[in-house]
Amino acid sequence: VSAAPAHQRTLWPDPAGDAVFVLDQRALPHRRVELRLRGLHQVFEAIAHMAVRGAPLIGATAAYGVALQCCSDAGNAALRQAKATLDAARPTAVNLAWATQRMLGRLLPLPEGQRRAAAWQAAQALAAEDVAANSAIGEHGLAVLQDMARRKGRRLNVLTHCNAGWLATVGWGTALAPIYKAHAQGLDVHVWVDETRPRNQGAALTAWELAQAGVPHTLLADNAGGHLMQRGEVDIVIVGADRVTAQGDVCNKIGTYLKALAAHDNGVPFFAAVPLSTLDLSLRAEQVPIELRSPDEVTQVTGLGPDGQVHSVRIAPEGTPALNPAFDLTPARLVSGLITECGLTPANEQALRALTAPR
Amino acid sequence: VSAAPAHQRTLWPDPAGDAVFVLDQRALPHRRVELRLRGLHQVFEAIAHMAVRGAPLIGATAAYGVALQCCSDAGNAALRQAKATLDAARPTAVNLAWATQRMLGRLLPLPEGQRRAAAWQAAQALAAEDVAANSAIGEHGLAVLQDMARRKGRRLNVLTHCNAGWLATVGWGTALAPIYKAHAQGLDVHVWVDETRPRNQGAALTAWELAQAGVPHTLLADNAGGHLMQRGEVDIVIVGADRVTAQGDVCNKIGTYLKALAAHDNGVPFFAAVPLSTLDLSLRAEQVPIELRSPDEVTQVTGLGPDGQVHSVRIAPEGTPALNPAFDLTPARLVSGLITECGLTPANEQALRALTAPR
Repeated sequence: VSAAPAHQRTLWPDPAGDAVFVLDQRALPHRRVELRLRGLHQVFEAIAHMAVRGAPLIGATAAYGVALQCCSDAGNAALRQAKATLDAARPTAVNLAWATQRMLGRLLPLPEGQRRAAAWQAAQALAAEDVAANSAIGEHGLAVLQDMARRKGRRLNVLTHCNAGWLATVGWGTALAPIYKAHAQGLDVHVWVDETRPRNQGAALTAWELAQAGVPHTLLADNAGGHLMQRGEVDIVIVGADRVTAQGDVCNKIGTYLKALAAHDNGVPFFAAVPLSTLDLSLRAEQVPIELRSPDEVTQVTGLGPDGQVHSVRIAPEGTPALNPAFDLTPARLVSGLITECGLTPANEQALRALTAPR
Repeated sequence: VSAAPAHQRTLWPDPAGDAVFVLDQRALPHRRVELRLRGLHQVFEAIAHMAVRGAPLIGATAAYGVALQCCSDAGNAALRQAKATLDAARPTAVNLAWATQRMLGRLLPLPEGQRRAAAWQAAQALAAEDVAANSAIGEHGLAVLQDMARRKGRRLNVLTHCNAGWLATVGWGTALAPIYKAHAQGLDVHVWVDETRPRNQGAALTAWELAQAGVPHTLLADNAGGHLMQRGEVDIVIVGADRVTAQGDVCNKIGTYLKALAAHDNGVPFFAAVPLSTLDLSLRAEQVPIELRSPDEVTQVTGLGPDGQVHSVRIAPEGTPALNPAFDLTPARLVSGLITECGLTPANEQALRALTAPR
């Protein structure tokens, strides 16, 4: 396990122990803005309004939200209320409730006077574990890419959807971790970047990350990936996930299912790279809550205008109704495998229960 | 066959016989702009730069381009050069070369002095035939929707991709013609409108057309259609096409293939509504030229800004490379059927050869 590059950090605690800093991802790629979150409510806002996003990162940010709560009131009722508040910020990614549950599991048994210090340590540990898990995902995914490169004997073309890079985690990323490790080893890897409407996390975040790291990449409209697979231009699809069910169904950014169908139709391997914190063995696919976001995200597009300012333009007639489901479910039958910190795993219940069984 | 509503016309000749008017579809939905095209070169520009778009409409516009050529030089060499110029304006839609071929087939046998008058008549006839064919497509498609409404006994949800409405034709539209006819008959129809990145013809044109006609509709990111099909929210998919091969493969706007895969995976009927002028029995799917358009269409989005002006915003980091294939191929195995002016036809070679055989 190697440390993530220091400049690739999405959140870091204030040394004074009374705030946490995050990158405001809504400003990228056009500006770098740091936010200093000073209390539970500001953490809630940052998650709900997607200043921070990405399943692993919202988990880690929520853990710090619990720590911040301990600065003002570390009583049982306050902590339980803090968890309920944070869990409601985004409904789909399971890492959020997983992280707050883990925090409360550590804190509630302690005397109230010890909770504040313990909370900051626990949040820091959770964040460090995320980095370590993603690094391990990167190593296991790297082996897949190395094997494929050996067989093909040419540049590998990886397609990814949304952003599952270091910006979506505390460090390294999930789907992009294998790519960063492959690039660092000199493997010739090129990434097809889905723009990922409606919020364009691919165009804004993944393209930015890859450019910063010097990884060759090309932006695509979400519509184009199937065509490229038909033409043999995609060797492998790697995505992240917000929740993986016991049956191996993958809940991820809206549009992932369409890419999985195309991959299956063209014999292209389709992998989800996920830390174990993204597994949720309690719900079946049809029970996973799918977040509905504002129609404005569909009718308006934000970017850098000709005046050098960031603003939104409306692409539809005024008053056009729009529906904006943020996630979809890819059935396990379309998933070649999961890449977790424990290695490659088939997307089925037996394998996932074995992976998560107490040892 | 009923006439298309008069206000729904995309092109009309100047009575003076020396120009043709078109709606500039790049200005919609924010402004209504008419262009007066006065010569071959202006027709070429209008097609190449997508002031007019939609396979049937670019065919009809090109026919008028040949007529305009006859105003200045109706000689054999000039007409052949005009055809070559127009055919090169957009490579994928076969209606373009079909229309110019038909014009030359009518004009070349005539004495040069008769060509100008004949050309305007031939272009007008071709445009009128497009309206009639689309009206017939609408009637045949209406029967499909009526049958489905009888069986389901509730509102029908139709998903469409790109714009195959009256704006894509001389009148009525192809995929939207059945919807307009159903709506006029009081059938409860609601349309899911794919935004259709990168040029957003769904958001800008289809949503505008449907709003004008009072047809209930909801805009979706292209990524969302598969999810809605999984949830049973889509009863039927109807799209247009730019070229249909002898084998029944459907070449249409990029992203159509992904929707066809999702429809197939969820048992949702998938139809292409096409006039016979869109059939091309000469090429196999892998031979169909797929237009590559400017990467700027992917990295920039145009819309109405907060200042009430139309402009573009950049959604990706400066210098991000992008690939922009404009069409893809949906294999016949995913196509439930074609709706042509002759009725419903299976998407296979035997049926298509029978349909187009000389009688």
